[in-house]
Amino acid sequence: MSSPPPIHSREAAAAQDGADPLAAFREEFLIQDDGIVYMDGNSLGRPLAAAARALADVVSAGWADRLIRSWTEGWMDVPLALGDRIGALLGAAAGQTVVADSTTVCFFKAACAALDARPGRREIITDPGNFPTDRYVLESLAASRDLHLRWLEPADPTRGPSTDELAAIVSEQTALVTFTHVDYRSAAILDLAGLTRVAHDAGALTVWDLSHSVGAVEVELDGAGADLAVGCTYKYLCGGPGAPAFIYVRAELVDSLRQPIWGWLGRRDPFRMDPGYEPTDGIRAFLSGTPPILALHALEPGIAIVERAALARIRAKGVALTELAIALADARLAGHGVAVASPRDGRVRGAHVALAHPRAQELCRLLTDSGVLVDYRAPDVIRLGLSPLTTRFTEVWDAVEALRALLAGEPAAAS
Amino acid sequence: MSSPPPIHSREAAAAQDGADPLAAFREEFLIQDDGIVYMDGNSLGRPLAAAARALADVVSAGWADRLIRSWTEGWMDVPLALGDRIGALLGAAAGQTVVADSTTVCFFKAACAALDARPGRREIITDPGNFPTDRYVLESLAASRDLHLRWLEPADPTRGPSTDELAAIVSEQTALVTFTHVDYRSAAILDLAGLTRVAHDAGALTVWDLSHSVGAVEVELDGAGADLAVGCTYKYLCGGPGAPAFIYVRAELVDSLRQPIWGWLGRRDPFRMDPGYEPTDGIRAFLSGTPPILALHALEPGIAIVERAALARIRAKGVALTELAIALADARLAGHGVAVASPRDGRVRGAHVALAHPRAQELCRLLTDSGVLVDYRAPDVIRLGLSPLTTRFTEVWDAVEALRALLAGEPAAAS
Repeated sequence: MSSPPPIHSREAAAAQDGADPLAAFREEFLIQDDGIVYMDGNSLGRPLAAAARALADVVSAGWADRLIRSWTEGWMDVPLALGDRIGALLGAAAGQTVVADSTTVCFFKAACAALDARPGRREIITDPGNFPTDRYVLESLAASRDLHLRWLEPADPTRGPSTDELAAIVSEQTALVTFTHVDYRSAAILDLAGLTRVAHDAGALTVWDLSHSVGAVEVELDGAGADLAVGCTYKYLCGGPGAPAFIYVRAELVDSLRQPIWGWLGRRDPFRMDPGYEPTDGIRAFLSGTPPILALHALEPGIAIVERAALARIRAKGVALTELAIALADARLAGHGVAVASPRDGRVRGAHVALAHPRAQELCRLLTDSGVLVDYRAPDVIRLGLSPLTTRFTEVWDAVEALRALLAGEPAAAS
Repeated sequence: MSSPPPIHSREAAAAQDGADPLAAFREEFLIQDDGIVYMDGNSLGRPLAAAARALADVVSAGWADRLIRSWTEGWMDVPLALGDRIGALLGAAAGQTVVADSTTVCFFKAACAALDARPGRREIITDPGNFPTDRYVLESLAASRDLHLRWLEPADPTRGPSTDELAAIVSEQTALVTFTHVDYRSAAILDLAGLTRVAHDAGALTVWDLSHSVGAVEVELDGAGADLAVGCTYKYLCGGPGAPAFIYVRAELVDSLRQPIWGWLGRRDPFRMDPGYEPTDGIRAFLSGTPPILALHALEPGIAIVERAALARIRAKGVALTELAIALADARLAGHGVAVASPRDGRVRGAHVALAHPRAQELCRLLTDSGVLVDYRAPDVIRLGLSPLTTRFTEVWDAVEALRALLAGEPAAAS
């Protein structure tokens, strides 16, 4: 809640860049000197030069030279090896996380596994502000299994569902409680441990969507006793457009939960091609089809740079970037009708900031046309995504200044 | 059934290479001069140099330079554009094929869509020789929906299920009939049109697995009235390890069938992020999560080279390569206990050849260790995969000769 000293100049932002301990990491990314102000690193992280090299290497060394032999020379273990490293960024011990499929498919698998483990219970709880693909998957499961999808409408949409609000509606009828840890609109960080505890007290299982968390904020999956989790790797892990997602299953559950898409890569001894599906041991049983090897190699450097930069420093810069954005919005945009729609307490705010304005959609289009890339989120949110490894404090200044100039009817400044 | 003149020399095979109208296409692939005899192009097709370039381009141009804007500048349409081109290789008009997910996940979606369209029917028919991941998915669906999975055991496993055999068991209880068009072990080509007709006569829907067909043999999906199909792109389309798969839904069905994984990319107006899933129009509704853009770009050159080489020529070379393999096996391996386990009629044989021997597993290991890369398929099959754009007739000679030398107890020749 502490207010930083007001910063009302580009020079002050530049001074923050100069003092940024993570500044050198930005040099590892492929960034054009084109004046673009990129406020969308939480939607599609920028590429690392190492990702391009990794793709070239896997084509020439793994694919062209070793050919089919690569499958037994390491490729089979890539989904698990990367899973363990992503798990380590989420407070998960090894053997509980695997990389595979899209986030949507991973969420489908996780939700099915949870529902199958709670037969007889008729209810799923989520919030109407949850990310659309999660909501749609839950609708499909509710429809196909004749379950009730119960919407927890939080009293404060900017803060999202609280433990008290969940406790008031969860019951012995609840099979599954599922939320997104960092809200994709407001950036509110939910109380993962508390909400999990409330769900468990009612005997329900939890699936957490960590798409806006992984690589940006600390998560303690094991410590919280979370049951299942999924997340996307093309945001703060910079895995590339449509990069494969991950799925986490708590060790105590991994051999009893079963995912619904029984494919050969999740079977014991897949290359025996025997009759009858038997899940293999451990988290590998959550694989279905052949892993996307090229995409997995493109993802590895994004995990590596987060490991090297260290999550605590990334998180600290995320807080500082969002604090700057909020301070500038208060000082320079509030008079133009812009309201901060993210939590003001940095401890419960992820690495993006929602600014609300009735003309948000038009403003987002004008900003994007002028090279300030932001996201519009219906009905009224301009989302500034601040990716700590690549976003500069001066970019935050430039984005807010561009929005101020638009609202003030000034001609766009060349940046 | 016509027997080609016996060819019992490497020189004769070299002459076939010299007369090969497709020989120049091999130069477009990244092939080391390492003496490897590659009989696994039907398992993992070799990489095109253009695939490596496409990956470098999409990272630098699409991802690094245009960033998030690329989604509205073309990426959203890539799964459909490539789908249409793959469809054209399968006798499918545009608008019925989309590229997404793994083959296993596509098969799961297709099978669910078919089953949901035949409520009340309690039976799925497939054959026990179908590819494992298809069998396992069907098991999962039979278990979760309390359906009967009925195995059609063909009288001649080398030829696979016939229309008469299907007609004898299909009934008004059959919801889904599903087979792999080109058998992954024997290479037998099933009668797609005939089996589809028999299924339709009983009111059932069909899902065809075209993994060993696409880019190697002609298919007439529209002409046959096939309902749904899926297939893999890392074999003859050379899309790379774990490349995304495709799914085909016949135009008459595409707006009435519904796939089970309701994700944002299959919804109408996905970026509105509205409440309530409504499938978008057309085949796009079979998408779920964010498309794997890097992998899709790596796949495009593999489709393009098949288009340029022309499927009829690829097919003709596939027949010629497999005829050579069979002729050499008859002449040089039969005396060592090797039996041809693929159809002898080239019209019903795909682009690989199964050679049966009691010691197949050990022989495959020894061959692979000596640089002749073949696949073992339990219990007794040595599989020679002959990929017409890259496999040379001399490679067929070398593979058979290496196997002959092994069986004769001769030291391995340096190739």
